[in-house]
Parts: sequence; structure tokens; C-alpha cells
Amino acid sequence: MNALFASDNVTSACPEVMDAVIAANSGIAGSYGDDEWSLALKNRLSEIFETEVEVFLAVTGTASNALALSALAPVFGKIYCHELSHINTDECGAPELFTGGAKLIPMRSSNGRIDASDLAETIRGSGNVHVTQPSVVSVTMSCETGTVYQLDEIKAISKIAHDNKMSVHMDGARFANALVSLDVSPAEMTWKSGVDVLTLGGTKNGCLAAEAVVFFKPEMVGNFPFLHKRSGQLLSKMRFISSQLEAYLTDDVWLRNARHANAMAKILSEGLDSFANIKLAYPTQSNEVFVHLPRDVIDYLNSAGYDINEEELDGKAVRFVTAWNSEVKDINDLLDTLAQKY
Amino acid sequence: MNALFASDNVTSACPEVMDAVIAANSGIAGSYGDDEWSLALKNRLSEIFETEVEVFLAVTGTASNALALSALAPVFGKIYCHELSHINTDECGAPELFTGGAKLIPMRSSNGRIDASDLAETIRGSGNVHVTQPSVVSVTMSCETGTVYQLDEIKAISKIAHDNKMSVHMDGARFANALVSLDVSPAEMTWKSGVDVLTLGGTKNGCLAAEAVVFFKPEMVGNFPFLHKRSGQLLSKMRFISSQLEAYLTDDVWLRNARHANAMAKILSEGLDSFANIKLAYPTQSNEVFVHLPRDVIDYLNSAGYDINEEELDGKAVRFVTAWNSEVKDINDLLDTLAQKY
Amino acid sequence: MNALFASDNVTSACPEVMDAVIAANSGIAGSYGDDEWSLALKNRLSEIFETEVEVFLAVTGTASNALALSALAPVFGKIYCHELSHINTDECGAPELFTGGAKLIPMRSSNGRIDASDLAETIRGSGNVHVTQPSVVSVTMSCETGTVYQLDEIKAISKIAHDNKMSVHMDGARFANALVSLDVSPAEMTWKSGVDVLTLGGTKNGCLAAEAVVFFKPEMVGNFPFLHKRSGQLLSKMRFISSQLEAYLTDDVWLRNARHANAMAKILSEGLDSFANIKLAYPTQSNEVFVHLPRDVIDYLNSAGYDINEEELDGKAVRFVTAWNSEVKDINDLLDTLAQKY
Amino acid sequence: MNALFASDNVTSACPEVMDAVIAANSGIAGSYGDDEWSLALKNRLSEIFETEVEVFLAVTGTASNALALSALAPVFGKIYCHELSHINTDECGAPELFTGGAKLIPMRSSNGRIDASDLAETIRGSGNVHVTQPSVVSVTMSCETGTVYQLDEIKAISKIAHDNKMSVHMDGARFANALVSLDVSPAEMTWKSGVDVLTLGGTKNGCLAAEAVVFFKPEMVGNFPFLHKRSGQLLSKMRFISSQLEAYLTDDVWLRNARHANAMAKILSEGLDSFANIKLAYPTQSNEVFVHLPRDVIDYLNSAGYDINEEELDGKAVRFVTAWNSEVKDINDLLDTLAQKY
Repeated sequence: MNALFASDNVTSACPEVMDAVIAANSGIAGSYGDDEWSLALKNRLSEIFETEVEVFLAVTGTASNALALSALAPVFGKIYCHELSHINTDECGAPELFTGGAKLIPMRSSNGRIDASDLAETIRGSGNVHVTQPSVVSVTMSCETGTVYQLDEIKAISKIAHDNKMSVHMDGARFANALVSLDVSPAEMTWKSGVDVLTLGGTKNGCLAAEAVVFFKPEMVGNFPFLHKRSGQLLSKMRFISSQLEAYLTDDVWLRNARHANAMAKILSEGLDSFANIKLAYPTQSNEVFVHLPRDVIDYLNSAGYDINEEELDGKAVRFVTAWNSEVKDINDLLDTLAQKY
Repeated sequence: MNALFASDNVTSACPEVMDAVIAANSGIAGSYGDDEWSLALKNRLSEIFETEVEVFLAVTGTASNALALSALAPVFGKIYCHELSHINTDECGAPELFTGGAKLIPMRSSNGRIDASDLAETIRGSGNVHVTQPSVVSVTMSCETGTVYQLDEIKAISKIAHDNKMSVHMDGARFANALVSLDVSPAEMTWKSGVDVLTLGGTKNGCLAAEAVVFFKPEMVGNFPFLHKRSGQLLSKMRFISSQLEAYLTDDVWLRNARHANAMAKILSEGLDSFANIKLAYPTQSNEVFVHLPRDVIDYLNSAGYDINEEELDGKAVRFVTAWNSEVKDINDLLDTLAQKY
Repeated sequence: MNALFASDNVTSACPEVMDAVIAANSGIAGSYGDDEWSLALKNRLSEIFETEVEVFLAVTGTASNALALSALAPVFGKIYCHELSHINTDECGAPELFTGGAKLIPMRSSNGRIDASDLAETIRGSGNVHVTQPSVVSVTMSCETGTVYQLDEIKAISKIAHDNKMSVHMDGARFANALVSLDVSPAEMTWKSGVDVLTLGGTKNGCLAAEAVVFFKPEMVGNFPFLHKRSGQLLSKMRFISSQLEAYLTDDVWLRNARHANAMAKILSEGLDSFANIKLAYPTQSNEVFVHLPRDVIDYLNSAGYDINEEELDGKAVRFVTAWNSEVKDINDLLDTLAQKY
Repeated sequence: MNALFASDNVTSACPEVMDAVIAANSGIAGSYGDDEWSLALKNRLSEIFETEVEVFLAVTGTASNALALSALAPVFGKIYCHELSHINTDECGAPELFTGGAKLIPMRSSNGRIDASDLAETIRGSGNVHVTQPSVVSVTMSCETGTVYQLDEIKAISKIAHDNKMSVHMDGARFANALVSLDVSPAEMTWKSGVDVLTLGGTKNGCLAAEAVVFFKPEMVGNFPFLHKRSGQLLSKMRFISSQLEAYLTDDVWLRNARHANAMAKILSEGLDSFANIKLAYPTQSNEVFVHLPRDVIDYLNSAGYDINEEELDGKAVRFVTAWNSEVKDINDLLDTLAQKY
């Protein structure tokens, strides 16, 4: 219970997803994705994104991100990303491994989001044989500070990328949280805003372990099936992953889960902000709340059983994450605990 | 139904494993393996193998094999394996990716198993800077021809390896099938015979997707946790993998499943062998049966709805694989179908 | 003196090449190949090969081979080569490094040369996502047993490669020796026989350190300039490499050097063959002579000051290599020394 | 002539070095560094650095830097360097290739040099499996802005590195220029200040193509000989590289060359600084002069035949580089040309 708000990956899977896994466990099925669940998922995603997509599955966000990047960046490529991005800070070099050595260029725009004008100024070296080549821009939705890009921000970044013959990757580990925050369509938030390849996360928002690499331009798939297999992410009994995502994306399960998580984050954020000496580090726009807490308050919460997650962002901040099954009661308990300190 | 004997990965998960996954889906739990199921699994494996082991999980055999090799081979290393081994033929270069370019040396001993004296003759170049360096021997149990190494064969290979300062890896994708075939203990088949690192498969024998890299010498773990994370196989909700293997290894589930599969293979093998013009390609020692079939018989079976799996081994052979839930009735159906042709 | 016949890389550079280096050491010149010598070399090679070529330089055969392969093989590619080939046995994994993990498939045709029908039978797995993909065939001229492919053999191999959508690489570390042995034109021995990319060696035949990667189809160059730079082979003062090869290829220097080396090998080969108990391991077709020598004769020669080079080929053999400046007197000394033993 | 000040790599080799190459071209010699010149060089370097060193040669700064880093950083390692450093900006990903994917962490301290306190704050994540691991700090002498670290600055950086169990690499592409600028001993500027591995450049300061990777702690060499061979930098006729460096380091050739180049830079720097509207971008401490020039002045110089090298540093700046053979007359010509504009 103490790790309650440590991350959205400490939660269980939601009932709709679990039921789908149980249902998929029946009879024989083709292996390596040659099964009805995988086919249904591809169709579901094409419907949701309002365009024919190609889909490849993975079981971790690290793998799906690194795989997506490996489809877009040559070994001598530059991948522009925010300094705080998961691909830059939390994947222990997986992008470098999967791409064969592409270089991540960490940008330091404010609030954890890449600024289009910073990007334009940073891109350089195209065609110069001494220099790694501008290849990809990666944006995260929602991003590592819990904020979201506005559609016109994504469009501006994509335009710069495409003008420079680069591709656009979106790390959608918390895609649904950003989507309901913006209240736009999946198509609007991705390919209609210039995103070429998406890694769509399910794990944090109600799945057991399910992530998808979604290509909006089938012609960009190229040799990706070989890269996918070679990475160790082509499961033999793929139906157990496909079925998770298929249920997750059916009947708005993913959106309901995300709306709940975001609503809980809002309650928590407002509660924390009401304390005189607690300051929000970033505006709360999805399911992550970042606050600056004095050291003694951190110690107090830890001693009270909370497993406080301190992050190195622009400065230190404490992260609280809500999930599809967070309860108001638990939030109130946390706020009450804090109130006793103040 | 037509893919019934195509592979043991077309089957569902067994009830004990599925129940464990359902049970694990409760409450919050530490992520990345910091959970009770992962701890229990480590203890279970240490008990089963009669020694303190270190365990890292993965979701595909390709990943677990490639990861294990990456712990043992330097980038300029040689990995001796059989030409037919899964790491050499079925992983699309994952070992090369994960090791950073180590070279697999394909050996051509008969029956799909490395011959110790062939190995001794093949090892060369140690200390010569122009030559990739002998680093690992990899043996498969049961191997790709459905046969098993005898303990003294593993010991002989291990001795040569260790005498040459190399490590021994066992690809145990079908570990349980080999174990019950030999009727020895897990310890005897591995570290007591000189195996340093094992990839222990669960997926083919009743799990959804669960493989373990087992270190018998904790001091060989070294930097492996970073290699593991970097490969995209460190799941956030690891409990859903740990719980599978924990149930699989409890109350002899894995052994019962494997004994059943092997028994079914024996029935099928004898049935096939009783046809005058069907010839076994290899003795049936686990849950895979290989036979030479005339082209017209292959066509006939395919038209009858069987999805025949032709393999390139010493020569072409057709593979039939039984599993934890194969039924005698289905085997008889296959034999009857063949009888109608002959 | 004792290493006299150990290799053709123990020799000095020929005067024409050395003079060219001295001449190039004058004034300022553009760096990284933007100089008159590099331009002249490109033109020279286009003239010699009777087609417009693209040229990239390197200082070792290992680098030039690995670079050439990196232009042709994807990370999940298969490179078919002879088991004895330099890329497979003597480059400590450079091809795997430069290609990002492509897999060398060692073939065991006789005499150190790939047999076209063996190749046809060995190619497999195209389009199968589990399998590394057939991508390149690499042939060596003259090859590691000192023999040469006939033009129709190269053509047969190239046809099979191209029919399978693969590329053809020629390791020409001893290109000139093979060329004068066959007495054909450079064009005939390469692109007219289906070779796509050549690594042309100069070092062994009179240069200080100069190798060229020659593309016969400019459209195959693609991103190679970046791979070249990234490999650390784009010299700033490139004129010192270009000038070597430019002189080497001028006024038949390379051909004269090679003819001399081959002629010396022929004298040595006939001399050795005249001993009753010395047996040639392979026919002598270029500047390498392989013989089977009893152990006591090897010891005797070593004690007489020769630094005997034992090679693991089809079986053990002793290698004697002649060079552009080998002298008949030294050959006679060797034969006399042997005669005293017999 | 127009590229006169574009770089120190547009120059020829100095006579002492050229004479040594000519002298080395005599008789047979052991290959791959087993020759008298290579042995003499190792001894020379041990003498100059006042400690027993291990030496490996390369022909480009890119290769020698990337090789050195590959000895120090694991595949999941972090290499802290300045954002402007050659390894980060001018090697097209060679460090990533040679290290197998280590991550360069670009620091933005002022004047192109890493600030020790910035470094201390930036190092993080040690032992955290999600995070690439702090492994190496790389400093450049003289650095990419033409300035030099003071000894106490190097010591402070080294202390932080070693306190964090990291290694210290020095990119000494312009080692001699920095050395004479500081007027300290080679030992003081390296291992006595905490440097573990040095890449010592010869090419820019009078060699044809010669760089050395120098290990001050032989126990850190480990498997480096295999990495060296595998990178394609182990030349067969190594004497032609060793002899260059051996002559370069004899009789103070390298120091004389560097002193001349630095003196010329000082004259040029003072000349440029005397113009009212030309502003030095950095203090001139070695053989590179950086100035801010208006666009029309750049165009004017280009039209006057100078090949102006614009660099992206903290802001744009124009680089002029002097060399071992720069002449006062040429500097005066440049200044006169500018004077005509102003």
C-alpha cells in the first residue's frame, strides 16, 4: 500500500483486460501473431486511428520505444528528444542497442516538452559526413513532467522534422491519459499532426504487459519485421498480448481508465496545492502530479509508509501517479497525513 | 485444429499457470521484479536446482537465449553451437545483437547434438589477436532433432569448455521434456554436469510467455542486470511473468506436463513408424517426432487439413510436436488419415 | 630474414609507391579526400575498370572488407563465405562489428573456394522472419588457399546471388596476383562477372598501407560515406593513401609486382614439390604455396631461422608467401636448407 | 592556398617524420607491430611519460578516440564530455559504434571545457538499473575552442571521476599544442593529473597519419588488443605508423612543431584582435583562433580566396588554425586583406 502513488505500473490489470486474456486461453492458435486476436487488434487500431495501420507488439515500453526508433534512425542517426524523456533517461541504452548506435540529442526546453523553435535551431549537420545525421524527433504524450503537448505544438515540431527529412516518433506510454486530457481523436493526436510512428502503451493503464508499435505509413515498415523478431519481442503465443490490447481498446476501456486516472490526479493535485508550502512543479495535465516538497516532509511521508519517488527534473520534484483504479479514499488519506504535518 | 502438431507453441496455457496469473492480478505490487512472486520464484528455483541461483526473466526463448549469451561472450567471442540450434537458425540474429557481434560457430555433429570430440578439434585461436576468441559452448535440451544429450555427453562437453576457459550455456526451451526423458534431477542435468547458465523455458510446456535465465554461479552475473534492462525484457509488472513460472514449477506441474507430451510423442512416433514407407529421421526422445515423408504424402496431409511443418535438418524432415494437452484421439485421427493414403 | 616467406606483409613498399608518398608531401591540400591525388585515383580506377566507380579508402584489409560488407548486409543479414575466408577467420569479428551483427555463413567447399552448387543449396530462409536473411556472397581473389576462381565460377556464383536478390563482394586483398594469374582484365574479373563491390588491396603488393572499397554500381553507395567516416577510416590527410594507390595502379606497377611474386611462387612451388616427401596441399596459382610438411621438417626449418607459418586449412599446411621483391637466391637458400635435411 | 588556415590537417608532414618513414621502408619486418619501430616507440613513450605505458596505434583521431572509449565504457555506459567535443560532434557516431552503444552526455560548461562542479552535479544514476551508468569523463587538450585546461582543473575532474568509479580519457588530438601552452611535462598533464587513457595525436602536428592510444595503467588494457584488431586499426605494416611517431617524439620535434604553431596563432590572434570590429570568441591558448566576424567580412574573405571555416560553438565563430609550418608572411597577408576591407 505504501507504494500506492509511486507509479502507475504498481497496479493490477483491469477486469476487461484480464477477462480477455482468460478468454484467449482456449484451444490452439497460430503462433507469432498469426491468430485471430492479433488480426482483430490490427483492425481495431486501424478503425480507432481512422487509417490503415501496421502493428507490432512488445511487452515493455523500453522495447517498443527502442524498436520504433530502430525503424526510423540509421546507425549514424540523430534522435532529438527532451533531456527528461524516458528514451534518454530510463531505458539503460536500449535505443542505442536497438538502433545500432544512433545518438540521442537531449534538448532542454522547459516543462519537459520540446520547443519547436529550439528544435529548429538545434538541427544541424545534414549531409556533413563528419556529423551524425538528423533523423528522428521523439515526443512523449503525456510527457515526463505530466504535461501534454497541444496539437499545434506537435504539428509545429512535425513540420520542422519533415522539412528536414526527419521522422516523428511519439512515445505514447501514457497515450490515453494525454488523449483524454486534450479531448481530441487518436488520429488528430498522431498522424494528422504529423506523427509517423507511435508506441502505444497499455501496461500503465490497465494491461498486464502490452505495448504496440503503430506505423501510420505502411511504407515505412520496410524491414521492421526482422528487427522485431531479432529484438526478442515476437512472442510465440502472441494472442496473450494481442487480446489484452484488443480488450483495452474496445468499448472505451482505455479512455475510461485514463479519464479516471486523470480525474484522480486532479483531485490530488488540487489537494496538494492547497497546502501553503507545497508547490506544484508543473501543471497537472494527465495522471502525474509533481510537487516540490521540503526534505522533512519527504522523510515524514516515507516514515508514514509512503514510498516517495523523487525525480530529477528541472530540479528535484516528488512524483505522485494515479491510475485506472486509484481511489478517492486513498488520496484523502494522503492529504490527511500531510495535514497532520502542517 | 489443422496446426495441431505444428508446434508446442500453438497450445494454450495450462490451468495451474492461468490460475496463478489471475491470482497475481490483485492489489498493488512493486514493479520490475520487486514483488512477492518474483521472490518466491527465485526461492523455488534455488530449491529445485539445489543451489542458490540468480534469475532473470524474459518473455521469449529468443530473448532469454540471446541475453544468456550476452552474459558469457565478449563482442569478439566465439559461441560454439550445433548448426541446427535455435540460436543459430531461428532467432534472426538476436544473439549477434545482444552480444554486440559475437560469432556463432556452427558445428555439424550428427543427430543435432554437438559431439565432444568434434568440439575439442574445432576450438582454436585462443589468444591470437586476429581470431575471435573461444568463449561459450551452447547445448540444447531437448535439442532441435528431438533427441537429448546423455549426462556424460554434457559433462564431456563442459569439461572441454572449461578446460579452454569457456562457459557452458544450455538452451532449455524444452528443458522439462528432456529432464523427464533422462529421468534425472534438474541439478544433475545442469550445474552438476558443468552448465553455467541455463535458459529455462516455460512457454512451450504450459505457460503463456515465461522464460528464465538462470545463473548457477552468482559471481557470473556481473553487469547482467543492466544488459537485461537494456534489452527491453525487464517488465514493469513482472509479477505476471514470475507467477507463471512459480506455478509451473510447483507441485510438479512442469514435469507432469512434460511427461504427458513425451508420452504422446511416443505413441505418435510408434504409430508413424509402423507405416512401411514412413521412416523416423531421429529417435523420439522427447516431444518432437521427425519423419521422412514422400512429397505426395505431405501434400495429402496438408489437403486433409494438417499444417505440415517441413524442416531443413540433416536432410528434409517433417516435424510433429506434441504438448502438455495433446490427446490420443487426435493422434489416432492423424494416423487414420495416413492409413487411408497407404 | 627468418620471416622471409611468412607473409607478403613483411615486405617493404616498392619504390614507385614510396616516391609517390614523398611527392604528395608538398604544400597544403584539402583534407578527407578532397585533394588532387584522391581525384586522380578515382579517375584511374574508373579507367582501369572501364566503368565509372565510386571509391573509398582504408588502411587495412580488415577494415576495407568489413566496410564493404556493411554497405551490403543489413544487421539481420547472412553473408555466405568460405569457412577459410579472411573475413571469417582473421578479422576478429570486424565484419560483425561494422555490419552491426550480420551473420557469416561458413561454407566448406573444397580448395578454399565456394562451389556454386553448394551455394545454391545453402541459401535459404528468404522472407522468413525467424531467419537471418540471405544478403551477400563474398569470394576472395586470390583465395586463402592460394588458388583462384575461374571467371565462369565467379559468374555462376554471382548469378545465384543475384537470382536470390543478394549482392556479390570480392575480397581482393591479393587482387593483382589473381588478375595476372587468370590473365584477364580487371573489369572481366569483377563487374563483368557480377561482382558488385570490391575491396582492392595494395598493401601486400607494394604499398605501405592502402586498400580501396570500389563500388561498381554508384547507386549502391547510399549512406556509405557516413559508415566510412564512422568506422574511423576517413583519414584527414588522405592524400598519403590515395597517392600510394594512384602510383601503384600507374604504369602497370601493380601488375609487374604481382607477376614477379607469382613467378617466384611458381619456382618455390616446383622446388618444394620436387622433394619426395613434400606434398603440395593446393595447386600454386598465385603467390602463396601450401605444403604438407612433417613435424620434424617444420622444427628443422624453424631452427634454421625460418619462421614457419602453420595454417589450419582442410588440414594443417605450411604456408610460404612470395612478394613483389622476393629473390630467387632466397628461394634457393630455402630449398638448399631443405635438401640438407633430406 | 586558400585553405591555408582552415585546419592543421591540410598541412604536409614535417621532414623529420617523412625521413623516418623513408628509413623504415627497408628490408622485411615483422607485421602487426612486431617490429623494431613499434618497440622503440613504446619505449620512447614510456620514457616521455615517465612510466611504463601500453600503446596501440591508429590512423585517425576518430578511431583512436573511439577505441580508447571502448576500453573504458561498457555498452550501457555514460561518457561525460563537452557538448562541443570532437567525440560528440565530429566522429559521426564512431564512439557509439566502437563502444557498442555507450551514451555520450554532452555538457555545456563555458569555453568548451567541462567544469568540475557541473560534472559533479551531472553524474547520477549509479547502480540504478534503468539508467546508463557513469563510466568515463573525456577531456580534450587543447580543446575545441582552442583553450586549455589548467592542471588543477584536470585534477579536479579526475578526482570526481575516480570518486565515482569512473575513468578519465584525454583526447589529445592537439596534445603537444596544449603541452607547450601549459609548459608542463607530459606526465603532469596526464597520469599525474589522473588521466587513465590518452589518445595522442600526431597527424595534425607533423605526421602523415599517426595516433596512439596510450594506457597509463597496463592493467586497464584487458581485452583491448582484440577490440583494436576488430576495429580495423591493426596495420600489417605497422612500422610505417610507428616510425612516424617515433621520429615525432624524438629530439623534441613534436614540441618544436607545436611551439611554432602556437606562436603563429598568437601573432594571428593579436592581429585579428587589433581590428575594432573583430572580437575574439575565446582566448587563444594553443594553435586555434576563434573570432566573431560579420557576415560580409566572411563573404569578403571567401571571395579573396580564403576558405572560411564557420563553426557552431556557443554561438557561431570563425576558426583559423595554424600549424607546424605556418609562415608569418601568410598571416600578414591575411591581416592585410582584412585591413583593406576595414
